[in-house]
Amino acid sequence: MNRNRQSVQKVQRPRVVIIGAGFGGLAAARTFAHVDAQITVIDRNNYHLFQPLLYQVATADLSPADISAPIRAVLRRQRNIETLLAEVTGIDTARRVVFARDRADGREQELPFEYLIVATGAGQSYFGHDEWEPYAPGLKSLTDATAIRRKILLSFEAAEMEPDPEKQRAWLTFVIVGGGPTGVEMAGAIADLAHKAIVGDFRHINSASARIVLVEAAPRIFGAFPPKLAANATRELERLGVEVRTGKDVEAVDAEGVVVGGERLAARTVIWAAGVQASPAGRWLGAQTDRAGRVIVTPTLSLPDHLNIFVIGDTASTHDRRDPSGKPLPGVAPVAMQQGRYVARLITRRLRAQRSGEATDEEAPFVYYDKGYLATVGRAFAIGSFGRFTLSGLPAWMIWSGVHILYLVGFRNRFLVMAQWAWAYLTFQRSARLITMDDHAEAPQVAQPERQQAIEPPTPARV
Amino acid sequence: MNRNRQSVQKVQRPRVVIIGAGFGGLAAARTFAHVDAQITVIDRNNYHLFQPLLYQVATADLSPADISAPIRAVLRRQRNIETLLAEVTGIDTARRVVFARDRADGREQELPFEYLIVATGAGQSYFGHDEWEPYAPGLKSLTDATAIRRKILLSFEAAEMEPDPEKQRAWLTFVIVGGGPTGVEMAGAIADLAHKAIVGDFRHINSASARIVLVEAAPRIFGAFPPKLAANATRELERLGVEVRTGKDVEAVDAEGVVVGGERLAARTVIWAAGVQASPAGRWLGAQTDRAGRVIVTPTLSLPDHLNIFVIGDTASTHDRRDPSGKPLPGVAPVAMQQGRYVARLITRRLRAQRSGEATDEEAPFVYYDKGYLATVGRAFAIGSFGRFTLSGLPAWMIWSGVHILYLVGFRNRFLVMAQWAWAYLTFQRSARLITMDDHAEAPQVAQPERQQAIEPPTPARV
Repeated sequence: MNRNRQSVQKVQRPRVVIIGAGFGGLAAARTFAHVDAQITVIDRNNYHLFQPLLYQVATADLSPADISAPIRAVLRRQRNIETLLAEVTGIDTARRVVFARDRADGREQELPFEYLIVATGAGQSYFGHDEWEPYAPGLKSLTDATAIRRKILLSFEAAEMEPDPEKQRAWLTFVIVGGGPTGVEMAGAIADLAHKAIVGDFRHINSASARIVLVEAAPRIFGAFPPKLAANATRELERLGVEVRTGKDVEAVDAEGVVVGGERLAARTVIWAAGVQASPAGRWLGAQTDRAGRVIVTPTLSLPDHLNIFVIGDTASTHDRRDPSGKPLPGVAPVAMQQGRYVARLITRRLRAQRSGEATDEEAPFVYYDKGYLATVGRAFAIGSFGRFTLSGLPAWMIWSGVHILYLVGFRNRFLVMAQWAWAYLTFQRSARLITMDDHAEAPQVAQPERQQAIEPPTPARV
Repeated sequence: MNRNRQSVQKVQRPRVVIIGAGFGGLAAARTFAHVDAQITVIDRNNYHLFQPLLYQVATADLSPADISAPIRAVLRRQRNIETLLAEVTGIDTARRVVFARDRADGREQELPFEYLIVATGAGQSYFGHDEWEPYAPGLKSLTDATAIRRKILLSFEAAEMEPDPEKQRAWLTFVIVGGGPTGVEMAGAIADLAHKAIVGDFRHINSASARIVLVEAAPRIFGAFPPKLAANATRELERLGVEVRTGKDVEAVDAEGVVVGGERLAARTVIWAAGVQASPAGRWLGAQTDRAGRVIVTPTLSLPDHLNIFVIGDTASTHDRRDPSGKPLPGVAPVAMQQGRYVARLITRRLRAQRSGEATDEEAPFVYYDKGYLATVGRAFAIGSFGRFTLSGLPAWMIWSGVHILYLVGFRNRFLVMAQWAWAYLTFQRSARLITMDDHAEAPQVAQPERQQAIEPPTPARV
């Protein structure tokens, strides 16, 4: 704390704190590139996560490192930025201080700010049924993704060992709850894994017989897309061997499966891709939130009673100002990025006005510039909606790949992900089929040997 | 159990069980390709690990998936092989049965065998000081490697936050115990990371000032190599900024550092690469072992009183038969692979003789064909010893890279590892700088939101 106060005194520059280095936070940080201010980026991970491809880690297509970039490396050249690996524990809006716990040594800190950008994202919501979480994990972090990967791969292993046909069937049944992009991507990728990538690897089961069920409570999947595109996507899913069940609520989830529309589905793997719940930022800020926990903000994305505190991305409840129905902006990367850049520019203008002593112009509200939406369904099939123009199939998939590769942070990742996709496409093989047990569940590497003096054998090199 | 017995009755073929899909076990399995026998490969992981490059996972150069290949995929085409993801818990040599616990569903099994190959490798030994293990982790599994990666990367984060210069110094001091190939590789790679890859990423520390100390109890590092090569390696390590301390015993290890030759070194990161302890196979088999726990075997690598049970690789105590001093064979991949192939051929000959009713010829003992040794020191520097011919520097490093790429299992991994090395070489960047917290230590993805009904926002796709 001492040191922070010292460094503020030494720097004598206005301090901007950004919480979260997701798409929104990182876009804001980069926009401050040539601004004379001290920017502090706080994240509880040391990496930026490219969340749109997270499902490919869960389905053994990519490795965690392929879709993440160290925040320090991304922001290395911006000398006005300091990065902090810390967990935010609270915010004092009156004293203008963020409380954070350092993740390396557990030290508690107070970070004073003049401007604050909160971009902490969203987590999973189980619609009031948090007891379902252990049986139906969601996909929000790298830990989630490797846990789901482990669960999926172990299901095939368990099925291979299971003599009872009925139980074997339950191991080979995969239920994905939620017909939005994440649910559809997961369903398509699991179908591809079971029906193509691992066929021939087992001796007692036919992995191609695996049953993949996609459940959606609404009358159709891809509710945000035009009905025609959603129908094309459904056809493609069915071609891949996915059962699509719409208009049915999930009524129960347990270790044995799910109950959907009154019917029990015996399934040992259930994946939750249905509900979103904003981070606890609303509580930290003592701010008004909507039903999903998202903070209600002004048209300039600040808190109504704290014009120096901004909330962006999945954490904020924002609406399309040009749409008369006022529908909420979707929780996607482009919204977060545009809001991050908008807020950073707004703060920059205020800092300049402060310095020159002039009054700022009236601040224009945030307007989302909608470039369109894309969603992938399976191998070489996507749908795209760009205003009145729509697209499905291979052409949409090529745009989808291009856009995702383009936006991947860091040239190296782009190059490697492209190489892996090309390889997977040509061979149907998956690159990351590791079952990594977590440290605690894992059996000791070597059962404790008897306490005896071990000698070190001569250790020549490996050829 | 029932099912196994059934399948044995159905198959009516001699059953060979291989425990461990490391270099030795996999070489044996592949040698059985066209043999009329039922081969079962048991491993507690679903992947074969390319251990010689494990240190590159620990130092953020490669991802876990880059150096592992799913055992099922590797052996897919060999229809006489069944793979089991299970933990061996014991062996009944008299009844000829292996006991294993399935890792997918925890089920206990009994696997009958006619021939058994034990290739379970080795773990770390702390020379009777197992209490040092929490402070000085060893590098044997992928879990170890990602834990060490986390430890190293978090040290820099902690140093960045530490106001006290003395404590900061301790965070920036890395001690590697053991001057064999693993210790030298780790020391060189950490030096390269601190002094090159992450320079410029921090604001309060200079990562290039990090102190890397390599400790070896013997009078020199690389005891198995000719003195001249070891001297070259020492010079290269010093050029990379590694302090090499030889002839000094480690007397204590704790959370604050190590005591070496009476002197305390304050270091928050200590890595153990000194002692090797064979797996508990000796205990399972009730066999005689040497001081490092390795099973004493006959010249044909079987147990003296069970000629159908073979022990190979790091688990066996074997000697160079052509060397009059009878020095033990080193714990390296080529030894394990040659032993695996030797044993598989020997079993094949016995099975043929059994079938034809003829007597087998006298069995020739195993002889290790030594192609030479290579060890890498740092960026583009290695040493090589091939009989009377020795080599150091870039030419040796090029051979080292070529050999490692060539032996990597699966074309895909080869291609990707090559791409990553090329990238790292050109840019000094590391590809896998992720601090992945383990599931239990990790803070919840989102602090528990208040129990309120969350609504699902419309979930359009990601562009």
